[in-house]
Amino acid sequence: MNIVEIIEKKRDKRELTKEEIEYFVRSVTEGSIPDYQISAFLMAIYLNDMTDPEISYLTEAMANSGDRVDLSYIEGIKVDKHSSGGVGDKATLAVAPMAAACGLPVAKMSGRGLGFSGGTIDKLESIPGFRTALTEDEFVTFIKRDGIALMGQTKNVAPADKKLYALRDVTGTVESIPLIAASIMSKKLACGSDSIILDVKCGSGAFMKSFERASLLAEKMVRIGQSNGRKVYALITDMDQPLGNAVGNALEVMEALDTLKGKGPEDFTELCYVIGSFMLVAGNKAENLPQARKLLENSVSNGTALEKFRKFIENQGGDPNIIENYSLLPQAHTVIKVKSPESGAVTAINGEKIGTASLTVKAGRLTKEDKIDHGTGIVLMAKIGDKVTKGQPIAKIYAPDEQSAAEAEKQVLSSYSFGERAEKKKILIGYIDEEGSHIDQDNH
Amino acid sequence: MNIVEIIEKKRDKRELTKEEIEYFVRSVTEGSIPDYQISAFLMAIYLNDMTDPEISYLTEAMANSGDRVDLSYIEGIKVDKHSSGGVGDKATLAVAPMAAACGLPVAKMSGRGLGFSGGTIDKLESIPGFRTALTEDEFVTFIKRDGIALMGQTKNVAPADKKLYALRDVTGTVESIPLIAASIMSKKLACGSDSIILDVKCGSGAFMKSFERASLLAEKMVRIGQSNGRKVYALITDMDQPLGNAVGNALEVMEALDTLKGKGPEDFTELCYVIGSFMLVAGNKAENLPQARKLLENSVSNGTALEKFRKFIENQGGDPNIIENYSLLPQAHTVIKVKSPESGAVTAINGEKIGTASLTVKAGRLTKEDKIDHGTGIVLMAKIGDKVTKGQPIAKIYAPDEQSAAEAEKQVLSSYSFGERAEKKKILIGYIDEEGSHIDQDNH
Repeated sequence: MNIVEIIEKKRDKRELTKEEIEYFVRSVTEGSIPDYQISAFLMAIYLNDMTDPEISYLTEAMANSGDRVDLSYIEGIKVDKHSSGGVGDKATLAVAPMAAACGLPVAKMSGRGLGFSGGTIDKLESIPGFRTALTEDEFVTFIKRDGIALMGQTKNVAPADKKLYALRDVTGTVESIPLIAASIMSKKLACGSDSIILDVKCGSGAFMKSFERASLLAEKMVRIGQSNGRKVYALITDMDQPLGNAVGNALEVMEALDTLKGKGPEDFTELCYVIGSFMLVAGNKAENLPQARKLLENSVSNGTALEKFRKFIENQGGDPNIIENYSLLPQAHTVIKVKSPESGAVTAINGEKIGTASLTVKAGRLTKEDKIDHGTGIVLMAKIGDKVTKGQPIAKIYAPDEQSAAEAEKQVLSSYSFGERAEKKKILIGYIDEEGSHIDQDNH
Repeated sequence: MNIVEIIEKKRDKRELTKEEIEYFVRSVTEGSIPDYQISAFLMAIYLNDMTDPEISYLTEAMANSGDRVDLSYIEGIKVDKHSSGGVGDKATLAVAPMAAACGLPVAKMSGRGLGFSGGTIDKLESIPGFRTALTEDEFVTFIKRDGIALMGQTKNVAPADKKLYALRDVTGTVESIPLIAASIMSKKLACGSDSIILDVKCGSGAFMKSFERASLLAEKMVRIGQSNGRKVYALITDMDQPLGNAVGNALEVMEALDTLKGKGPEDFTELCYVIGSFMLVAGNKAENLPQARKLLENSVSNGTALEKFRKFIENQGGDPNIIENYSLLPQAHTVIKVKSPESGAVTAINGEKIGTASLTVKAGRLTKEDKIDHGTGIVLMAKIGDKVTKGQPIAKIYAPDEQSAAEAEKQVLSSYSFGERAEKKKILIGYIDEEGSHIDQDNH
């Protein structure tokens, strides 16, 4: 087989065979084809798309390019969740203990954040003492005993995807639906779960700006799962504004705790119940979505979800007293309020600008080497649809110093738009499963 | 400026500015952007095309990336010719002395061949003693005194094109009309002539298989010339079979000499008169094409063209006795005749297969390191439209040994197709100049 012929085939919109795609991925993994041929091929894929069989072969080949995680020590159906990422998305922090409280074992491998959206590990590390560098023995013990554990990824999962992603990042080929779908799903397939709940964010603050692209990505990932024997549900959820109110590590832990106590922000609480419901149904812990939701709501109202979170923190060396006493979490040096420049209704909150503001106050990192300040961030006090009067506080900024607070204030102000009136946003736009698309047209 | 943004712009079909294209070419020349970004950009160009202004900026920037040849020592209008290449194309060997005999100075820089089509320098080096490694002083002296000289390219002409071509060759991005047009024209612009006659080959044996693509390429090159103040005529000529009868270095020199003596093959002779006519008109040595053709025909019938060739050989150290005595040229060890497998008319001769046969007998090189046998090659004895009877010789193979002769025989046989009847091919399909397209619809 010859890589130039494979490039030319994709260039000419002819369908590649399983063998050709496997040869390509194997060569990428081994490093036996030069980057300039890989990037020409990636651009041809970007512009000429891939068929469903091609996407499936690519995903499988990338999943097979490295280690496979073995979860066979967990009984029953293993359910994973994945979010396409967005500003303020701390869903794992709240959904994992809720689902575990309902009897679904949660064995989560997570990463650190880069750019606008923080990583779950960074958020958890704002809890004093909390460690994610577990041994495999510890991980298995915690899951078997308490049904919940989270560790940093240590295995060499989908190395071909790592290599391709690094090249896509510098050649203008990131935003390709087949490549995004294959990238996400190859890692999920290698991580050994039977079912995957995908949260595809859609809107101005997300990777997929339009509903059409978000639902196309969702559909492709469901099909990949199907052709690899995994049950996949892809939710499409709103990301026209940051999720919940808090953006920043300790601030997001507090919001997750509030949610587990039944007093979280409406949109974030709703998202957690939606994701959790699909997880319980996928894992055979509930017969249908309404029953699952009831179980999750009960786990919050009866305190079992919060107790599961306490166990989770204790197991992994964290101080459980933070649950009652938020002042034990890292605190910001400077806190200022951002006041509304006009009276009216909030019509839009640009998620990217809020993300930039959170970088300004050091709540996130732009390069792997950057150090994060766990105490800083932004808390939104008015969201789309809320009425405000001029001078009323619309956000709080938690900053390491006054200078960065002032800069972040400008960024937060520029992220808000006001008008006469605006509808509140619904969080769940719809979902796609093997049976097809379930989109509420009125909602969309 | 940022190369990723430039790649993304082309990826999204937005028009690039002059500054962006100049930045790209400068970075390629300096080696300051990695190959994987260049190749992703080339694939985006291949698939999304370029506008006429973009092609023009790219050509100019590549022409400016290295040395410029100064031809100001030649009085009047400097005319260059260029062929897009094809099997058996030895036009320069005959046209250059014809045009020089009609008073048009011919200052030619040429290259060596690679792959199917031989280079003019390789062909001339089959003449014992002939050297193309002239000093600039010699070159200028010969042109001023005798109006004709040919040397190998010594200047660093369009290095950005060299770099881009090397990458295109291994990333499936060679056959892109804007990139081909810019590549050819950047070298021609850097070589300092005022007018350029382009011979764009069209047909099964050429790079441009279809008339549509050939005329599109022709049109783009005329426009590039126009926007750079050069007068360009682009001829579209038939290449559905090899040009003339001879393929191979000394064999092609003999055919060129036959043509200068007025007894060359019909199609090749016609092509030389057509190209020469445009050269004389472009160089103000004739008022119109019919008058130019008359001058060229006279230069052959009165022997002045052949005398010019003799002078040319003598100046550059070659043995002029080859003109009367072809046996002084390198001879092949083994000569065999290929017999027609059936009776009928020749309907097609695949040029690529004839090219492969010429490589089999070592008349061409596949890598720069390969050594050429100057005596070997193929001579076709029947061309499209000719009637043959079974067993009649249709080609002669000149080989270094019997084994390669036998292999080349199979290749030559497989290149021929036969049928009941076939029309003879006309060589000139049409031409494009600044005033538009001049295509004889009956001919096409």
